Amino acid sequence: MHMDVQNQKPTGNFKLTRVGVTGIKKPINVQRPDKVVTLTAQIDVFVDLPSGQKGSHLSRNVEVISEILDKSVREPVSSLELLCEEICHKLLERHEYATYSEVGMQANYFLEKALSSGRKSLEEYKLIAKASAKRNEETSIKKCIGVEVVGMTTCPCAMETVRNMLEAKHPEAKECLKKIPVVTHNQRNITTLTIEVPRDYDVEADDLIQIVEDSLSSPTYEILKRDDEALVTLQAHENPKFVEDVVRDILGRILENYPDFPDSVVVTVRSESEESIHKHNAFAERVTTMGELRK
Amino acid sequence: MHMDVQNQKPTGNFKLTRVGVTGIKKPINVQRPDKVVTLTAQIDVFVDLPSGQKGSHLSRNVEVISEILDKSVREPVSSLELLCEEICHKLLERHEYATYSEVGMQANYFLEKALSSGRKSLEEYKLIAKASAKRNEETSIKKCIGVEVVGMTTCPCAMETVRNMLEAKHPEAKECLKKIPVVTHNQRNITTLTIEVPRDYDVEADDLIQIVEDSLSSPTYEILKRDDEALVTLQAHENPKFVEDVVRDILGRILENYPDFPDSVVVTVRSESEESIHKHNAFAERVTTMGELRK
Amino acid sequence: MHMDVQNQKPTGNFKLTRVGVTGIKKPINVQRPDKVVTLTAQIDVFVDLPSGQKGSHLSRNVEVISEILDKSVREPVSSLELLCEEICHKLLERHEYATYSEVGMQANYFLEKALSSGRKSLEEYKLIAKASAKRNEETSIKKCIGVEVVGMTTCPCAMETVRNMLEAKHPEAKECLKKIPVVTHNQRNITTLTIEVPRDYDVEADDLIQIVEDSLSSPTYEILKRDDEALVTLQAHENPKFVEDVVRDILGRILENYPDFPDSVVVTVRSESEESIHKHNAFAERVTTMGELRK
Amino acid sequence: MHMDVQNQKPTGNFKLTRVGVTGIKKPINVQRPDKVVTLTAQIDVFVDLPSGQKGSHLSRNVEVISEILDKSVREPVSSLELLCEEICHKLLERHEYATYSEVGMQANYFLEKALSSGRKSLEEYKLIAKASAKRNEETSIKKCIGVEVVGMTTCPCAMETVRNMLEAKHPEAKECLKKIPVVTHNQRNITTLTIEVPRDYDVEADDLIQIVEDSLSSPTYEILKRDDEALVTLQAHENPKFVEDVVRDILGRILENYPDFPDSVVVTVRSESEESIHKHNAFAERVTTMGELRK
Repeated sequence: MHMDVQNQKPTGNFKLTRVGVTGIKKPINVQRPDKVVTLTAQIDVFVDLPSGQKGSHLSRNVEVISEILDKSVREPVSSLELLCEEICHKLLERHEYATYSEVGMQANYFLEKALSSGRKSLEEYKLIAKASAKRNEETSIKKCIGVEVVGMTTCPCAMETVRNMLEAKHPEAKECLKKIPVVTHNQRNITTLTIEVPRDYDVEADDLIQIVEDSLSSPTYEILKRDDEALVTLQAHENPKFVEDVVRDILGRILENYPDFPDSVVVTVRSESEESIHKHNAFAERVTTMGELRK
Repeated sequence: MHMDVQNQKPTGNFKLTRVGVTGIKKPINVQRPDKVVTLTAQIDVFVDLPSGQKGSHLSRNVEVISEILDKSVREPVSSLELLCEEICHKLLERHEYATYSEVGMQANYFLEKALSSGRKSLEEYKLIAKASAKRNEETSIKKCIGVEVVGMTTCPCAMETVRNMLEAKHPEAKECLKKIPVVTHNQRNITTLTIEVPRDYDVEADDLIQIVEDSLSSPTYEILKRDDEALVTLQAHENPKFVEDVVRDILGRILENYPDFPDSVVVTVRSESEESIHKHNAFAERVTTMGELRK
Repeated sequence: MHMDVQNQKPTGNFKLTRVGVTGIKKPINVQRPDKVVTLTAQIDVFVDLPSGQKGSHLSRNVEVISEILDKSVREPVSSLELLCEEICHKLLERHEYATYSEVGMQANYFLEKALSSGRKSLEEYKLIAKASAKRNEETSIKKCIGVEVVGMTTCPCAMETVRNMLEAKHPEAKECLKKIPVVTHNQRNITTLTIEVPRDYDVEADDLIQIVEDSLSSPTYEILKRDDEALVTLQAHENPKFVEDVVRDILGRILENYPDFPDSVVVTVRSESEESIHKHNAFAERVTTMGELRK
Repeated sequence: MHMDVQNQKPTGNFKLTRVGVTGIKKPINVQRPDKVVTLTAQIDVFVDLPSGQKGSHLSRNVEVISEILDKSVREPVSSLELLCEEICHKLLERHEYATYSEVGMQANYFLEKALSSGRKSLEEYKLIAKASAKRNEETSIKKCIGVEVVGMTTCPCAMETVRNMLEAKHPEAKECLKKIPVVTHNQRNITTLTIEVPRDYDVEADDLIQIVEDSLSSPTYEILKRDDEALVTLQAHENPKFVEDVVRDILGRILENYPDFPDSVVVTVRSESEESIHKHNAFAERVTTMGELRK
C-alpha cells in the first residue's frame, strides 16, 4: 500500500481555487436529430482544494472523463453541456474533499448550409460547453453552451467616406451611387456566443450558429462558384457592420429567441474582425444577463 | 467633412462592455536600474460604449498608444503597469462617451541569472501588465504587473511510490535510499503570477520572477555545462513539487514580501506542468486577495 | 456568362510552383480493422500554374475534396494516404492546365493502449498523410503516411554525471547505485515519423505509432494510477534516451519492419524534447531513403 | 572528470541530418543606417552527427549563440544573415565531428511608413534569416534574408462577376460603372519573401519589405484616420490581386532590383490570403532561382 502523498498536510495554509488537468483530447459521440456524429473534444476539468490537503488526485479526473465517455460509445450524449454537467457531478463524488467542480470543453463541429443558389456547403464551427457545480447545492449547477463562428464583416464607416469621396470626384455619378454598392474594406470575422442553459430549458447549438450568422455582414462558405461568390460579396456590402453591430444584433436576437429565459441567465458575446486594412484586430464584447438586456 | 458613422444611433439599445483593438505590437523603451531595454510588447486596449452610440472610434486607440510610446523614445517608461495606467487615462480623454477603459500588455523580457557554479545565463521571461480606469473616479484606477516563468517540477507522488517499490525489491538498499535521491518524473512548468500594484506602492517584476523561481522544484537555464546540469537535476529532486505546492509557496512568499499591501489587493497565481508521463497538463490556480491570504 | 478572370493572361511570364487552398477542415470516415472511425482532418491542396494563366480555379479544389468525402460517408476510406492520392488524381482532371498536384492532411487519432498493469488508456496521436502526382506520369504518384507521437525521454548524460557525483559524495553507496536507477531530467517529447508508401505496399499507421513508442524512453498515458505511474517512471529511467537515440532506434525498426521496401522510399524522422531543465527544445532529425539506411 | 556520454558509440550505424536546439529567444542589437535597434529573435541551430557518435553536445550550441550575442552588445550586428553566418562558422569549430551547420532566425521588426496623406505609422514586420555551412568548403556557405509582411488583397474575380451582375441589373449605370470602383471581397494577406544573399552582395531587408508592399493590393497601416482609410480602400480596389498576382509581381520586382545576382541564387515567395468569404486560405508559391526567373 503506497503512501498517499496527495493527502499529506501541505506547507502554508492556503486553499486553491482550481486544481485539475488541461488539454485532454477525446472523441465524443453526440446524438443529433437525424444521426450520431463523432466530435474530437478538448477538455479541461478542475476541482477546488482545501487548505489542509497537499494535492488533488489528478488521475481521478481522467478516470471520470473516461468512464462517462466509454458509456457514450454505446449511448451517444445528447449535448456537450449535459456531458459537462455529468462530469461535474462525478468529480464531486470522486474528490470527496472538493466543494466545487468545473468542466470546459471545445470541439470542431460541422453543419451543412445552403447557399442562395441552392448549392450546399459543409461548414466548420466550434462548439464551446462549460459547467460548474458546488457540493450540497443541487441548484448551484451552472451549464452553458456556445459557438464560435467564422464569418465576414464589411466596414460601414469606410463605405460612407468612400461614397463622399466618389461623389465629390464624380458629381455626375451621384444618382448611380445611390443604386450601386460602394466599396469598403471587408474581412474575416470570428464571433463567439455563449449562453447559460437554465435548468429545464434547452438550447440548440445550431440555433446559436444561425443567430451569429444572421448578425454578420454575411456568413462564409467553403465552396462558392463564381455566381455564389458575387452574391455573397453583394450581400455583405448591403449589410455593412462594425463588430459593435454584430454583437448588438446577436443580443437582440437572443432576446427574441429565448423570451422566457430567467433574468439571471448569463450571456456573453465577443466579435473580432481581422481587419484587412490593419495588422491588428477590431474587437467588441458584451458580458451580461438576460435581465440586464431586458432593461 | 465626412459623416461620423460611429456617432450614429445604433439599432437596439445595448451598451457594450468592451470595444477596442487587439494584437497591436510596438517596441517599448523601459528604464531598468542600470540601463534602458527595448521590449516588443503586444497590446490590447478597450473602452466601453454607451447604448446610444453606434461605434467606438478605434483609430483613437492606436493614436493614444503611439503618442505615449513616441514620448517614451526620448523618455523611457519606468514600468509597464504605469504605461498601461497612462494609456487608460488618455483613452478616457479621447473617447468622451466612454466611462471605462482597459489596457493589457505582454512582452518578452530577459534577465541574467547566476548558476550555482557561478556561470551566468541570460534567461527569457514574459512580463504581463494591465490597468483599468473608470471616469470620474480617480481612485478607481487599478493596475497590475505579472510575470510568466518557465521552470521545472519533479513529482513528489511518483517519487514516494518508486521509493516503496525499490525498497520492496531491494530490501538491502533501504539505508542507501535514505541518502540518495529517488527517481521521479519531472517536466517543464509554466507559472504565472500577477499582483495588483496599489497606489503609492511599487512592485518590481524582477522580484516576482525570483518569487516564482524560488517556488519551483528548480529554475531552468539556457546554458548548462555537464556539472551544472547535474546540480540542477539534483536540486530539483531534493525539492519535489506538485503544481499545488508551487502555487502555495508563491502565495506564502507574496505574503512575506508585501506585508503592508492593503487587504483589497488582488493576487492571481497559475501553475501548469507539461507532464512528462501524460499527454495532458496538470494545473493549479488561486485567484484571491491579500486579505483572504492573511486569514 | 461571366468573364473567366483566372484564364486571363497574367503580367510577367512566371509559372508558379504551388497554388491552392490551405486550412480546410472536414470530417472523414476511415475504415479500421474492426470499426469505422470519424476523424477531423485539416487539408491543404495545391496544383502548379503555367506562366500563361493568371489564376488557378480555387473553388475546384474544395469541390474535389467535397465530392470525394461525400462518397466516403457511404463508403469509408481505407487510409488517409489513399484518400490523398485520389484527391491528387482528381485535381489534375479538374485543373486541365496543371501538371502537378499535391495534397497534405493531418488528423487527430485515438488508439487504446494497455499498461503493464493491464489497465487500458485511450491515447491521442496525430496522423499525417501526403500525396503528389505529375500529369502523364502514372508512376510519378508519391504518397506517404506518418504519425506524430507524444512520449517521454530521460536524459542519459545527466544520469551519468549525477551517478558520478553521488558516488563521490557517498562512496559507501556505490554498490547500491548499481542496482537502483539514478535520477535525471526527463520531459515530454514529440516525435514525427513519415514514410513513403510504395505502390502495391501497405503501411499501417498503428505500426508506425508502435515503432515510435518502442523507441522512446517510455510511452505516455492519459490514465496512470499510482502503481502505473511508478512503473512508467522506472521504465523510462531504465531506458534513458537522447533525441538522437530516439531517431536512430526508429530508423533501425523501420529497416526491420519494412525489409522489402524499395531503396528509393523516403523516410523522415524528427524528435523534439521539451527539455525540463531548459526553456528551449532539443531536436534531432534524419531525412533519408531506405537505400541510404541499408548502406 | 565526468564521462562524455555524447562521445559514446551509439546503437545502430545511422548518421543524423540535423541535431540541435530550437526555440532559443535572445535580444539582438542590430545596426540600422541611422540607429541601433534591439530585436527579440527566436533562433534554431543545428549540426549534423556522424554515425559513430551517440550525441551532439547541445550546450555548445547555446554557448556559441551567447558568445556572439554578448559581443553584439558592444558592437551591434550589421545584419541577421551575417549573424547567422558567423554562428554557422563557430558551430563547426566547436562541434569538431560535424560536417554541416545550419542556423535559422526570426524577429519582429518595425519600420515607419508614410501614408499618402503624409501621416506616419509605425508598422510591424517579421525578419527571417538563415545560413548553412559545410566543413572545408569555404564557398559552401549559404545565407539568406527574408521578410514576412501583412497586407491586403482585393479579389479581381469577384469584382468582375459583381460588375457583370450590376450591369445586368442596372443597364443605365453602365457608364458610371466604368468610372467607379466595383465592390469585391478583400482580406488580410500574409506574404513571405526570402532571397539568398550571394557572397560580396548585400540585400537590405527594408527593400524586400518595399517590394512586397508594392506587390499587394495595398499595404496596411496601424493608424488610419477616416480619409486615410478611404484612400487605402480605394487604392486596394484599383489594384485587385489574386495571391498568384502578388507572387508574380514580387518575382518581377526581384528581377529588376537585383539584376546582377548570380543565376544560382535561390528565391522563395509565398502569399496567403485569409479569405473573407471563406473559412480557409488561398495560397500561392514559387520556389526558384534567379536563373530560372530569367528564362
